[in-house]
Amino acid sequence: MKSIIALGMTVFLSAEILAQDGFVLPAGDADTAQALVETALDSDLAWDIVESLTTSVGPRLAGSEAEARARAWGEELGRELGFDRVSVEPFTMEFWERGEMEIVMTAPYEQALYGSALGGSGRSPFLGAVNAEIVYFRNIDALTAIEDGALDGKIAFVDGDAMVPSQTGAGYGPSNQRRRIGWQHAERGGAEALVVRSVGSDSHRMPHTGMMSSMDGEWADIPVIAVSNPDADHLRRLHNSGEAIEMRIRSTAGWRGEVTSGNVVLDLIGRENPDEIVLIGGHLDSWDQGTGAVDDGAGVAITTAAAALIAQLPQRPRRTIRVVMFGAEEVGLLGARAYAEQHADEIGNHVLATESDFGARTVWQLVSNVSDEGTPAIDAVGDIIGPLGIVRGGSNVPGGGPDIIPLAMQGVPTVRLSQNGSDYFDLHHTPDDTLDKIDPDELAQNVAAYVALVYLAAELDVDFRSATEDE
Amino acid sequence: MKSIIALGMTVFLSAEILAQDGFVLPAGDADTAQALVETALDSDLAWDIVESLTTSVGPRLAGSEAEARARAWGEELGRELGFDRVSVEPFTMEFWERGEMEIVMTAPYEQALYGSALGGSGRSPFLGAVNAEIVYFRNIDALTAIEDGALDGKIAFVDGDAMVPSQTGAGYGPSNQRRRIGWQHAERGGAEALVVRSVGSDSHRMPHTGMMSSMDGEWADIPVIAVSNPDADHLRRLHNSGEAIEMRIRSTAGWRGEVTSGNVVLDLIGRENPDEIVLIGGHLDSWDQGTGAVDDGAGVAITTAAAALIAQLPQRPRRTIRVVMFGAEEVGLLGARAYAEQHADEIGNHVLATESDFGARTVWQLVSNVSDEGTPAIDAVGDIIGPLGIVRGGSNVPGGGPDIIPLAMQGVPTVRLSQNGSDYFDLHHTPDDTLDKIDPDELAQNVAAYVALVYLAAELDVDFRSATEDE
Repeated sequence: MKSIIALGMTVFLSAEILAQDGFVLPAGDADTAQALVETALDSDLAWDIVESLTTSVGPRLAGSEAEARARAWGEELGRELGFDRVSVEPFTMEFWERGEMEIVMTAPYEQALYGSALGGSGRSPFLGAVNAEIVYFRNIDALTAIEDGALDGKIAFVDGDAMVPSQTGAGYGPSNQRRRIGWQHAERGGAEALVVRSVGSDSHRMPHTGMMSSMDGEWADIPVIAVSNPDADHLRRLHNSGEAIEMRIRSTAGWRGEVTSGNVVLDLIGRENPDEIVLIGGHLDSWDQGTGAVDDGAGVAITTAAAALIAQLPQRPRRTIRVVMFGAEEVGLLGARAYAEQHADEIGNHVLATESDFGARTVWQLVSNVSDEGTPAIDAVGDIIGPLGIVRGGSNVPGGGPDIIPLAMQGVPTVRLSQNGSDYFDLHHTPDDTLDKIDPDELAQNVAAYVALVYLAAELDVDFRSATEDE
Repeated sequence: MKSIIALGMTVFLSAEILAQDGFVLPAGDADTAQALVETALDSDLAWDIVESLTTSVGPRLAGSEAEARARAWGEELGRELGFDRVSVEPFTMEFWERGEMEIVMTAPYEQALYGSALGGSGRSPFLGAVNAEIVYFRNIDALTAIEDGALDGKIAFVDGDAMVPSQTGAGYGPSNQRRRIGWQHAERGGAEALVVRSVGSDSHRMPHTGMMSSMDGEWADIPVIAVSNPDADHLRRLHNSGEAIEMRIRSTAGWRGEVTSGNVVLDLIGRENPDEIVLIGGHLDSWDQGTGAVDDGAGVAITTAAAALIAQLPQRPRRTIRVVMFGAEEVGLLGARAYAEQHADEIGNHVLATESDFGARTVWQLVSNVSDEGTPAIDAVGDIIGPLGIVRGGSNVPGGGPDIIPLAMQGVPTVRLSQNGSDYFDLHHTPDDTLDKIDPDELAQNVAAYVALVYLAAELDVDFRSATEDE
């Protein structure tokens, strides 16, 4: 791993830029942050980390043996990179596995479809298959409007539209409804299976998996399968031409009982305020068909690399920097919830938190949700990383990433370095989420942005928490 | 189907442009060709045809029941579009089918790979699988250099490199060696299976299938599987890191006995020289995992639409225009060979032949291989279609498409309208070859180029055959 640190350089940052709202960024801190940015841009540490994770561990389904190997990998990496404290914090969870699956259109003619069971899907009858005609729904609203029992003996197919690619990933939430709640209405209708158009912006024969939403803790009994956008297009054209469509679906997906997952926690202990924590991270688990490079090997690599570069400074920053490799994110933020529970007594010590979980394209925006007192310091970070092509977005924007939600709900201040998500939903939860989709230079830009943010958040004597939440 | 013909327009083409090497394109013919170009650009007939073929028939493996449905579809289409003579010309062939396949890396850890049996592949042991360590070969040359028996009990994996995309598809031939002849050396070495990097320029988890080459009429006994470029990258990285790699391969691929395929022949009978034939076409069969939109539904659609537009003129051109939808191209040009045999006594009457079998991107070049007397007429076609962005390439360039080879070998003159193949080998022989990959406007540009060429070749009193071949 190449990680040459060139901290000798001094860069002049004008007091005019740095003095905002009465806040002055100390010149020494600014210089160090700037030097870290330069070092990060020239380092391939993050690339080495994500290459290692995706290659030596591979796919890492939440709760699987592979995810356990990923935790061992994370521990070893933390030690190698010189973190002061490395630990694995286990938790238990229910394990869902896709097993084997086949989805074939059998009428008007036979054609294999490219599909993937959704997380939480049930199975077809033992040693058998579901064979039935489909009922076509143009979108999720059409399905939710059915009467109970209206789909008896049928397969529901919920179409929709391919997502429109966007920098922000807007559109994911609405599109995602058919994945999330479709099964609840299909079962209510008496359907034997549910097939949905994948939630994704690509036009490849790549199904997008992802977790469904449970209903009062219950999951689907029937197979629930997402098919690729081109397959959904095909079914739509056939349906519109008046053809009756039948399918055969065989799936052995299901819940396999309780297993152990865990979070990997890597600390650089603060030299003055070790109890105050700046938390960054990504999630270690991935869906099982790709190798989880973009989601979220990249986030693990970016944040670990940023902290590791700071670890090579002559002294630790004032506060503790904590990298958390969350377990079991994809299946319901289980690692994040476990972390919040297990660290309940020190949540008030988390001064800032952010997760990288939106791929590895260049960061284009910095948003924050911190105290009025802390905001000018984040603005100063924005000034330093502005030359990386990053704009300063809103200072009152909640959300630091999915695994930060349980912390943010308890008042932990958040920031977000927004990656360009234009192709994120081409790859999201597909077999295509592999290492070749990451550009090393874009990845390094991410590390550069993170290292400036994290270093300053840990070094500056600034209170990011609001007064009401501090008491 | 919208196919409004607007032949009323007159366009002035200067005599200066049209008079070349003593050849003068009659103004009336030029006007008609120009009007056909305008009509084609405004028509969505080709789009309707390829949409119908891919949707109502779907994948059409050579020799399959689906290919038979495609022939029925072709006959019906020909009658609907007003061709004067519609026939199916059957031939027999050996049928190969992929059956079911599973390829999983089992060491250093378990990970499903995205692979596809190559055409002509053998099967794994009945109710069993091949379980073995791989021997890594950096390229096909490394495999061909092995000694007999050197791979006993192993799986050979032949790496290589992703193809570099290019307008011309250059690089396909050399890359293709591992697909073509790899099995012969793997079997010579005693390997239990062969796995090769797909021959393709994409970076998706899309394996590229395709036919192997037989050796003295014999085919592989062992499973031969192409894996996607990202999978091959993954195996390479693991191998380079020193890991021993094992795989489990289960395949039921094999030869199923003799079946009937056929060519669909649609004629517009020439008004003056009905025995003289201008032959155009594409191939009706496709690989079985996509729906054969780009390869070669597009070719069928472009050439059929071009002829159908000519069919709407007030009178038939002087010569016969024949559209051939070739069967069983993918598995060894079987339809083309059958056509040449079945039409042996009239091969001397084929005045010009060309096939569209390189996708549906815009045509960028016109090349020819016709007599000296005929070349200026092709130049005149080049002048008319030049404004479509098409350059006049070489006038001594052999090759009118794969299915034209048996005719060209017997002296039939050829032309080629070269499509931009920059993304052709992203899609070629993959599940991703679906309708959404075709741009309707680019498709219409193809029809416009074809219609000018075909109309003038059939109308002009020009001898494209060389003197020696005419006697």
